[in-house]
Amino acid sequence: METDTRNEIMRATRRALCTHGYAELTIQRIADESSLSTAAIHYHFDTKEGLLRAFLGETLDGFEGKLAARASDPRERLETFLNVVFSPPQDDDGEFAVALMELKAQAPFHEAYRDRLVEMDELMRGVVADAVRDGIESDHFRDADPETVARLVVTAINATHARQVALGEDPEETRRLIEADLRERLGWSPEVAA
Amino acid sequence: METDTRNEIMRATRRALCTHGYAELTIQRIADESSLSTAAIHYHFDTKEGLLRAFLGETLDGFEGKLAARASDPRERLETFLNVVFSPPQDDDGEFAVALMELKAQAPFHEAYRDRLVEMDELMRGVVADAVRDGIESDHFRDADPETVARLVVTAINATHARQVALGEDPEETRRLIEADLRERLGWSPEVAA
Repeated sequence: METDTRNEIMRATRRALCTHGYAELTIQRIADESSLSTAAIHYHFDTKEGLLRAFLGETLDGFEGKLAARASDPRERLETFLNVVFSPPQDDDGEFAVALMELKAQAPFHEAYRDRLVEMDELMRGVVADAVRDGIESDHFRDADPETVARLVVTAINATHARQVALGEDPEETRRLIEADLRERLGWSPEVAA
Repeated sequence: METDTRNEIMRATRRALCTHGYAELTIQRIADESSLSTAAIHYHFDTKEGLLRAFLGETLDGFEGKLAARASDPRERLETFLNVVFSPPQDDDGEFAVALMELKAQAPFHEAYRDRLVEMDELMRGVVADAVRDGIESDHFRDADPETVARLVVTAINATHARQVALGEDPEETRRLIEADLRERLGWSPEVAA
């Protein structure tokens, strides 16, 4: 499949999922958000479930890709991580958070969604824990338990989407909370990383 | 409306919302989870939206009620708060978390749901901030910013439901994280409260 077509289907999926919710999502409604026909979408994806699995996979891959160009300095790695997590996809107006929340709510019923979400959680916690561990070893951070810090950060990130969708709160509120917590625990701050 | 009838409708709503999701939820499906007819449910609630608004209101009221019998000791108040938040409703098997997540995902489209969720957030943060403030004043806790501690605790609680639903994680994981954080920040722990 051409990258452009795939990107267009994924963008349309995000919009349609946000507008209609999971249960009312159909390939027709995804087609309506794009320049493609339902036949063209069906050509690439047999079912709605398959398409949404791909959507989650895409999100995970995109996330991994953005984190791949890792700086060696653990302080910068933490900052890159927060930048990636708190940067919504292009052309996004809160749709991504709603779309992801819809799929999370479906995880108890779809093992394939859950697997991807668990993978994403492990990836995020791993990146933070590694950076914290390296930062402590290189004396850039104060001593702390890397796994606990990683769990705290990722837990707060999980809540960011929930607070954005449920309460209409700006994600920057939670970002500031995470940054203050990391400053307190590790002596890390974005200014130090810069 | 009799309390028993209301309770039955609310329990059936929780189950039906969890089983079918928001978009596929109908009064018929709620009736199927109860001993009541659709006519009996419609007698009390005109629309699905009205019923779900009542469901959120019920959750909020129940929560307020359980917190109302407040101990004067701020250490006990923190413990009661965590017990209330981490005690699922009776007969619950993770359904409540899924049901609440479904309604949170609908908040961008339903002002009435959002208002209740914002109210719940303010209530929770207020309870924690008050207990922290009182505990600092009475020298039971170390000095900290009560609003920041409250935001950290409630943010982690928001994530608990998301992690339970999306990842299948035991809510006790997050409870332990919150308790460790409070111990570190305030010198508070459940053992101290007991």
